[in-house]
Amino acid sequence: MALPPPAEIGLPLEDVDTPALVVDLDAFERNLEKMAAMIRAQGIRVRPHAKTHRSAVIAMKQMALGAVGVCCQKVSEAEAMVRGGVSNVLISNEVAGTRKLARLAALARHAKVGVCVDHMDNIAELSGAARDYGAELDVLVEIDVGANRCGVAPGRDALDLARGIDEAAGLRFAGLQAYQGRAQHIRAFEERRQAIEAAVAATRLTVDLLAEHGLACDTVAGAGTGTHGFEAASGVYNELQPGSYIFMDADYARNQNPDGSAYDEFEHALFVQATVMSTPSPDRACVDAGLKAFSVDAGMPTVWAHEALDFVRASDEHGVLALAPGANVARGAKLLFVPGHCDPTVNLHDWYVGIRAGRVEAIWPVDARGAGY
Amino acid sequence: MALPPPAEIGLPLEDVDTPALVVDLDAFERNLEKMAAMIRAQGIRVRPHAKTHRSAVIAMKQMALGAVGVCCQKVSEAEAMVRGGVSNVLISNEVAGTRKLARLAALARHAKVGVCVDHMDNIAELSGAARDYGAELDVLVEIDVGANRCGVAPGRDALDLARGIDEAAGLRFAGLQAYQGRAQHIRAFEERRQAIEAAVAATRLTVDLLAEHGLACDTVAGAGTGTHGFEAASGVYNELQPGSYIFMDADYARNQNPDGSAYDEFEHALFVQATVMSTPSPDRACVDAGLKAFSVDAGMPTVWAHEALDFVRASDEHGVLALAPGANVARGAKLLFVPGHCDPTVNLHDWYVGIRAGRVEAIWPVDARGAGY
Repeated sequence: MALPPPAEIGLPLEDVDTPALVVDLDAFERNLEKMAAMIRAQGIRVRPHAKTHRSAVIAMKQMALGAVGVCCQKVSEAEAMVRGGVSNVLISNEVAGTRKLARLAALARHAKVGVCVDHMDNIAELSGAARDYGAELDVLVEIDVGANRCGVAPGRDALDLARGIDEAAGLRFAGLQAYQGRAQHIRAFEERRQAIEAAVAATRLTVDLLAEHGLACDTVAGAGTGTHGFEAASGVYNELQPGSYIFMDADYARNQNPDGSAYDEFEHALFVQATVMSTPSPDRACVDAGLKAFSVDAGMPTVWAHEALDFVRASDEHGVLALAPGANVARGAKLLFVPGHCDPTVNLHDWYVGIRAGRVEAIWPVDARGAGY
Repeated sequence: MALPPPAEIGLPLEDVDTPALVVDLDAFERNLEKMAAMIRAQGIRVRPHAKTHRSAVIAMKQMALGAVGVCCQKVSEAEAMVRGGVSNVLISNEVAGTRKLARLAALARHAKVGVCVDHMDNIAELSGAARDYGAELDVLVEIDVGANRCGVAPGRDALDLARGIDEAAGLRFAGLQAYQGRAQHIRAFEERRQAIEAAVAATRLTVDLLAEHGLACDTVAGAGTGTHGFEAASGVYNELQPGSYIFMDADYARNQNPDGSAYDEFEHALFVQATVMSTPSPDRACVDAGLKAFSVDAGMPTVWAHEALDFVRASDEHGVLALAPGANVARGAKLLFVPGHCDPTVNLHDWYVGIRAGRVEAIWPVDARGAGY
């Protein structure tokens, strides 16, 4: 059911059909290399999050630059990565349900597979599935370090689970998952730093408690694009899980640097190209990309390189632009937009169109698009 | 790249993998039949909007109950409908761009195809494409009756375009597209009625002006689920375009009946089933469905038949539920959710799982999922 790609190799960008998910390959590669260099300099590991790109091609590029593997949120996402050549995946999430547990264990016969737990019963389920398939699973205990989502409390509860894993057949206790998701989009630098300081303290306490009981954490994992520098410098985290750094989005650009300026450590490398299909009045234009081309959960997309245009409203298949007084945009013109939130926007599209020097150089499938199970 | 379906025929609902897009077939069929009966009673036509379901199976069911065809918003969506057996499609939208114009005209060799315009230059483009393919296109003039999106002003501007269509080779002037999209979700009944009263007046004025100039409108089209009764009774509109009535969603349920009660003319027939994957605290649980399983542009999904649970937050792959004091939900439990907005939620999924009497009876592809071009 997937659509054919909106372009062929060699087409100029302006001939790519719309809406299209466009990657600026130069900016994307600079982002990949910048993160890889920072990780090398810190002497820690990176396991980028594939939930952002859902592309095995991109995962393999990350591994070629030194990533130990990728994170996934879903078993079906991990299956797509392994089919595409990725040899090491961590489901940075709990897995519940008989079908999914079986698929997880089966996949572990074909790649190194890890998963997180936050409930003792889940350990028995994972152990049963691993036994059924003759597989071994790495298992991390997820602790809640302020995200208020999944995970047990740091400390004693985590120790109980770690012991349970350590004693379960087919499972290897691999460490802690300690992702502070809520901190990623705290705008002020100092507040962001403090949120991670608290997460680091809770994580250190847990690592130390486990060590006192003979349970070493090979992996202490967490961090996202908004906070990775803090976890990298913590001396506790040793495996970072950033995703959005490869693309950036309008929401991350609202974070602040220490001096209050817009967060710009990484470059915008992901765009949606759309066509102006209607210019009904001097102050309004409509493009052919709305809620089915952009996820607006973190706000509207921003217009790239057109200060006089503002994307003000999305309906299912329309985007409404407000034009500043005197501004002009032609019917048929193609415009680039920076998505509000990159991950769920990527998940709306079947194909990446990679552009260099204004010309299509690469067409990559979004392998795990819709991979929810 | 499409995933296999999350179920097989005959499975009990609770064994359907998650997240899954679930249709209550009894409620869905009652919705289909109720709209069809109302249309028959009014002596007008219905052309349901396929942007809601993107499914040729559902389009064919609508036509079997008397619909003259379906609306689409995109050429690629229309292509998917025609491939699935639909013989009559109207693109209720402007089409811009050489590739799309060619595909539109080519499609018109295989089905009756209509399209809307709001710019004189677009008429020449459509005529050129029709000539290239030896095709004939029905063309409607879109007028802006309060939606503030596409469309020319009612009256004189519409007349100019109608004349242009009438004189263009390969095109047939078919009437007016006059959809008041903004009125669909006005909560108060009386305000909704007044918005359509204004749209009807503007449309009537335009129809009359065209008639004075010898241009008869075969089709006067518009209306959505929120207002269809007003357009049906107007004496001006003769072809209605509702989409969401087949499924309903949480947003439409916030509209009001004349007495202030919740709008309930149609039944909730569309759900997303999700699994509780974490129960980290007495007041919180997490399900395996977030921004990639629900579109939250019109608010969070609502929990079906569980008053003590509230879906309060979505991240990419997590939904966070707040539990009322004393409430309980088991890890592994499967729950149904009513999407905030049905159309963009459907577009996130590859498969419908149709349920009757608690068992899977039908599995239908979302044929035009992602069909943005």
